[in-house]
Amino acid sequence: MSINSFGHLFRVTTWGESHGPALGATVDGCPPGVEVDEAMIQHWLDKRKPGQNKYTTQRREPDAVKILSGVFEGQTTGTPVQLMIENTDQRSKDYGDIAEKFRPGHADITYWQKYGIRDYRGGGRSSARETAARVAAGGLARAALDKLVPGIEIKGYMTRMGAHEIDRDKFDWDQIDQNPFWVPDAKAATTWADYLDGLRKSGSSVGAVIEVVARGVPAGLGAPVYGKLDTDLAAGMMSINAVKGVEIGEGMSAAMLTGELNADEITMGRNGPEYSSNHAGGILGGISTGQDIVARFAVKPTSSILQTRKTITKSGEEAEIITKGRHDPCVGIRAVPVGEAMMACVILDHLLLDRGQTGGERGKIG
Amino acid sequence: MSINSFGHLFRVTTWGESHGPALGATVDGCPPGVEVDEAMIQHWLDKRKPGQNKYTTQRREPDAVKILSGVFEGQTTGTPVQLMIENTDQRSKDYGDIAEKFRPGHADITYWQKYGIRDYRGGGRSSARETAARVAAGGLARAALDKLVPGIEIKGYMTRMGAHEIDRDKFDWDQIDQNPFWVPDAKAATTWADYLDGLRKSGSSVGAVIEVVARGVPAGLGAPVYGKLDTDLAAGMMSINAVKGVEIGEGMSAAMLTGELNADEITMGRNGPEYSSNHAGGILGGISTGQDIVARFAVKPTSSILQTRKTITKSGEEAEIITKGRHDPCVGIRAVPVGEAMMACVILDHLLLDRGQTGGERGKIG
Amino acid sequence: MSINSFGHLFRVTTWGESHGPALGATVDGCPPGVEVDEAMIQHWLDKRKPGQNKYTTQRREPDAVKILSGVFEGQTTGTPVQLMIENTDQRSKDYGDIAEKFRPGHADITYWQKYGIRDYRGGGRSSARETAARVAAGGLARAALDKLVPGIEIKGYMTRMGAHEIDRDKFDWDQIDQNPFWVPDAKAATTWADYLDGLRKSGSSVGAVIEVVARGVPAGLGAPVYGKLDTDLAAGMMSINAVKGVEIGEGMSAAMLTGELNADEITMGRNGPEYSSNHAGGILGGISTGQDIVARFAVKPTSSILQTRKTITKSGEEAEIITKGRHDPCVGIRAVPVGEAMMACVILDHLLLDRGQTGGERGKIG
Amino acid sequence: MSINSFGHLFRVTTWGESHGPALGATVDGCPPGVEVDEAMIQHWLDKRKPGQNKYTTQRREPDAVKILSGVFEGQTTGTPVQLMIENTDQRSKDYGDIAEKFRPGHADITYWQKYGIRDYRGGGRSSARETAARVAAGGLARAALDKLVPGIEIKGYMTRMGAHEIDRDKFDWDQIDQNPFWVPDAKAATTWADYLDGLRKSGSSVGAVIEVVARGVPAGLGAPVYGKLDTDLAAGMMSINAVKGVEIGEGMSAAMLTGELNADEITMGRNGPEYSSNHAGGILGGISTGQDIVARFAVKPTSSILQTRKTITKSGEEAEIITKGRHDPCVGIRAVPVGEAMMACVILDHLLLDRGQTGGERGKIG
Repeated sequence: MSINSFGHLFRVTTWGESHGPALGATVDGCPPGVEVDEAMIQHWLDKRKPGQNKYTTQRREPDAVKILSGVFEGQTTGTPVQLMIENTDQRSKDYGDIAEKFRPGHADITYWQKYGIRDYRGGGRSSARETAARVAAGGLARAALDKLVPGIEIKGYMTRMGAHEIDRDKFDWDQIDQNPFWVPDAKAATTWADYLDGLRKSGSSVGAVIEVVARGVPAGLGAPVYGKLDTDLAAGMMSINAVKGVEIGEGMSAAMLTGELNADEITMGRNGPEYSSNHAGGILGGISTGQDIVARFAVKPTSSILQTRKTITKSGEEAEIITKGRHDPCVGIRAVPVGEAMMACVILDHLLLDRGQTGGERGKIG
Repeated sequence: MSINSFGHLFRVTTWGESHGPALGATVDGCPPGVEVDEAMIQHWLDKRKPGQNKYTTQRREPDAVKILSGVFEGQTTGTPVQLMIENTDQRSKDYGDIAEKFRPGHADITYWQKYGIRDYRGGGRSSARETAARVAAGGLARAALDKLVPGIEIKGYMTRMGAHEIDRDKFDWDQIDQNPFWVPDAKAATTWADYLDGLRKSGSSVGAVIEVVARGVPAGLGAPVYGKLDTDLAAGMMSINAVKGVEIGEGMSAAMLTGELNADEITMGRNGPEYSSNHAGGILGGISTGQDIVARFAVKPTSSILQTRKTITKSGEEAEIITKGRHDPCVGIRAVPVGEAMMACVILDHLLLDRGQTGGERGKIG
Repeated sequence: MSINSFGHLFRVTTWGESHGPALGATVDGCPPGVEVDEAMIQHWLDKRKPGQNKYTTQRREPDAVKILSGVFEGQTTGTPVQLMIENTDQRSKDYGDIAEKFRPGHADITYWQKYGIRDYRGGGRSSARETAARVAAGGLARAALDKLVPGIEIKGYMTRMGAHEIDRDKFDWDQIDQNPFWVPDAKAATTWADYLDGLRKSGSSVGAVIEVVARGVPAGLGAPVYGKLDTDLAAGMMSINAVKGVEIGEGMSAAMLTGELNADEITMGRNGPEYSSNHAGGILGGISTGQDIVARFAVKPTSSILQTRKTITKSGEEAEIITKGRHDPCVGIRAVPVGEAMMACVILDHLLLDRGQTGGERGKIG
Repeated sequence: MSINSFGHLFRVTTWGESHGPALGATVDGCPPGVEVDEAMIQHWLDKRKPGQNKYTTQRREPDAVKILSGVFEGQTTGTPVQLMIENTDQRSKDYGDIAEKFRPGHADITYWQKYGIRDYRGGGRSSARETAARVAAGGLARAALDKLVPGIEIKGYMTRMGAHEIDRDKFDWDQIDQNPFWVPDAKAATTWADYLDGLRKSGSSVGAVIEVVARGVPAGLGAPVYGKLDTDLAAGMMSINAVKGVEIGEGMSAAMLTGELNADEITMGRNGPEYSSNHAGGILGGISTGQDIVARFAVKPTSSILQTRKTITKSGEEAEIITKGRHDPCVGIRAVPVGEAMMACVILDHLLLDRGQTGGERGKIG
């Protein structure tokens, strides 16, 4: 089974290294007749693009996507869509030091142990640059969703940066796009900016929690028992670089609730079932309820920091390392559009699967 | 793609409903020459078996496993192993009420919406009885691991039950098997017993956090970027009934750390690399480091409670429901062997994959 | 990837050995709401059942199928369907001799070389008994097809037995079910009976060609470029025991045609495109045209014969072997319902896939 | 499941249309440490390259492959290898006529019916240009085989062109590379040249049979019962454009043999088992015996011919069509390297699978 692929029917295979000639996503299974062009996909890539402010890596690349196949006269044809992004700002010289030393917290040592060879330049395959390919595929998924189920909205935002967590009472959906942290609270954005500035200047870094919500997803998506919607979301999000935890709805806190607090009561609304609350995060038994799908993931702090750390070399000698170069003090920021992309891919995939499984018909209530 | 299957090369397909004639696991890809018999698998099933104490469902079934194929003269042959468990104590009459009403927090409504038909007896396919098949498959995986990499130890335990969390300073590995909660602290076990007794008597229920550790796993298992070891663990654990969150190593708390605290420093030990800490949970870039693999998941409180809850019927009328019958006040207890089983399956699967990918050779250090 | 599984969305995993307690098919991905019961599946199994006449193995077993899961109140629920057939007439003593010697033409030696262990009783996993599980799954596929696209007819028949080939000018569809060879020509049936009788008495065996036709299959099924309808038919049929060749439409003879003879001309009929001929076998570019799907496969002669053959033993000594026991002089006879089953499974699978890929809508002509 | 992908562990996804900017193969699962560069892959592409003589399409393109990922300092790294071939000689104007009319024998009509949109330029995705991507992937597979099992030789040749078949008694392995038809008989090559010249001048075309042999493949590759070596070869070859039949060893002729003629007798040679003959084509029970693997496939005549054929238009009107442009009078010629590529990919895939399944160990004989 292909291990650089993700999805059942909407199947995304990403390829490419940080400092190779190009990287991209081979997307197989996109439905035909989806209106899409490079600009539509570029829109989402620009959201992830590095070098946009002082909080993200100063590597400056246009990250311009090219569609090499599968689109004809502005529409997908049902054949594989190749989305390629050429690497233009590679600066290999920055990375010469890490050819011999393994950076703590990075995949350098495990790639070496597994493969006996690694493209050490910029982290090679384990670089977060791989996520650009995910975002491109997510852009295509969004275009397909627009055709199949108009009105689905997918939005990610940060709910925690290091010591700072958002106040849910001050949640402002409209603020998300107004600050570099995608935080739904204008005031928090200012505080967080100061906080991160301090960390950046001290050569440190910090982790983050990103929440992604999908609105307008119909009931009935997801399949028992290993292709549940939450299973695939967990896999998709855990596969993002630096992610260490994934939650659906109440998440880890569900452990602290009692049954009467946790189970969302059901009433009958004008258009079907309604729920008194959404502890489930829009998923019961792995299948969507029609409520908002709510997923959350934690990103560890960037391991590349300007502080001296102990490590070893390939030849087994102990050493110290400072990871210079261009790095994000909080990689969580750029993980927001990546999380959205995974959500878009998973939901589209399950829409297609559901058509294959049930024809997309629903059991009637009332 | 098969959605009741899990794993790449060690591929487990579970089948069966709570109140059908039988359930089981079809296991394809088990290596040949593994010594196994029904008693070895039964050992793990007994750990999960209901009705063992007052904290687990009073449904009393032997859950006796039969090996129907793939084993000859005490050894696996490399062909599919069919593990079947017959359902003996079905008591369908207990469940008559839920044919029409959807139980809040359960998959009743979503199965209905997706499929337009559901086996409502005992939750049908969405019943936690499905996890018995996982535990059986996990028993086989353990036997295979014993042959391939002797010395791997996989152990699960509870770290939280509702309001109560373990004190890591009092962690006692030897206590885990000594109490009904698999909690690594004798004193906590007593406190938790009282707490759960109270909840049970009031007809309530509570959630839990389970941690599973795998010791002795070699470095180099896992594959970028969508077949990472943590990705597959996250999928495997999130697919367990009632699970709402999954963590690796530091988990969600990684968001609160700075880079210098989080990245585990590396030194050179007698037998290879050693790490100053294990925030990573034994996985870097999706590949095992050789440290303990540490995964954690949260189980929501049992949704079947003896308290009245609002819901609707198939015909769309509002109603109230009390879920009688035999239920666990904390399903998290019986999720412990299930989590172990998923860990065993994922690690075996990646051992086999790694042999296919690299021949199992490692890049040398020193 | 599971290697005892077949199909993309309608996924069949067969399990079991010739002389184990049972064998069966775990079918994942059957759509919900399909009316099916054991009798409907038994109908097709009876067509394959051994011991029905002197031309098939005298092993007498009811081959009674049990549905263990996935069906509730007479309908499929969308969850895995477990179809189990218990082995009742095992007579292990017949096969003692082959524990040490490898039978020429059988998989004895290759299973041993691959796995280092084999269940030699009756051929173990490589026995043609495995095909009973395929026929059971095919029965379920037929039931699902009846619901999804009423009117599809799938029929297999023999076109060659050893030296004898049918005369296409005397093809009589109604004769197929009237003779033990499923041959569409009453007179040929008599000739073939005498021919096979002679072979049987001399302890010999002979090969056969089976053709399977599917009528009423809509245009548009199949997917480029590795999931073509003909690719999946070729795989399905080549995977049947003893099959050595597979053809679609004109088959190997296509090599002898010129372009103007081969390409089926298109005209416009009342209900859409019509074709002047069907050299393509109903498939162009891997996608169905709406014409009859025509597939053909060759079955080699039974390797178990009553004539002395040279072979070697496990310990590497040369030896002679006569395969006694109960065997078919022409296994091709019982391959007819197996070929039909594979056709049914592949067509259903592609119907489901097509819904997932395109929603089942078609490009309009006219 | 991805439908433009092929292979289990060595997984090839091809992408691209005849007249798009580029096409290629995304290869996931190539083992690390394989020495490969663009020239090594180009060697095999040149064998397939059009415009080399008057018998192949006059489209002249360098078909230059670029490696965009997965190779570092001359070796594969174990990450996806992207092989891209840019389309340079597109001449879209040649194909304007077929935007409205469906070419008989081509996939024009079925793509339209399935997808409701098609890139008609040069056949789009269904063009034989897609096979260039297969040949590139096959070149990588050959390089990997050289590392894993040195000495495997894979060779294809034509055994039939239209009315002409080779004489097995005059088979000359050394002649294969000496003539434009890859025919193992110098005299036949001359006769065939005249024959094809006549067909070409009359605007006709003809079919062919290609045989591919793999020597030096170890015993034990292949997996029951749906991932058999012959099953995967059948799928791989049937998926090639214009292929209508696939045979292993004796192939369709096996139907004409008796059991005593067909089953290859076994004796004990110096290095293990030896066989008196190879009717089985090197595969028993789906697993390799160590003998030559022999596969054969029939390619139908090119459907693009200079003779008037009846067809219909998208709007449903009857019409006539002559397919002008640049076409091969016998596409079978260029199918030879494609068949070799599929053989190389399947054997490598099963080598990797076998390592995963059994560790590559063999049951001992003697």
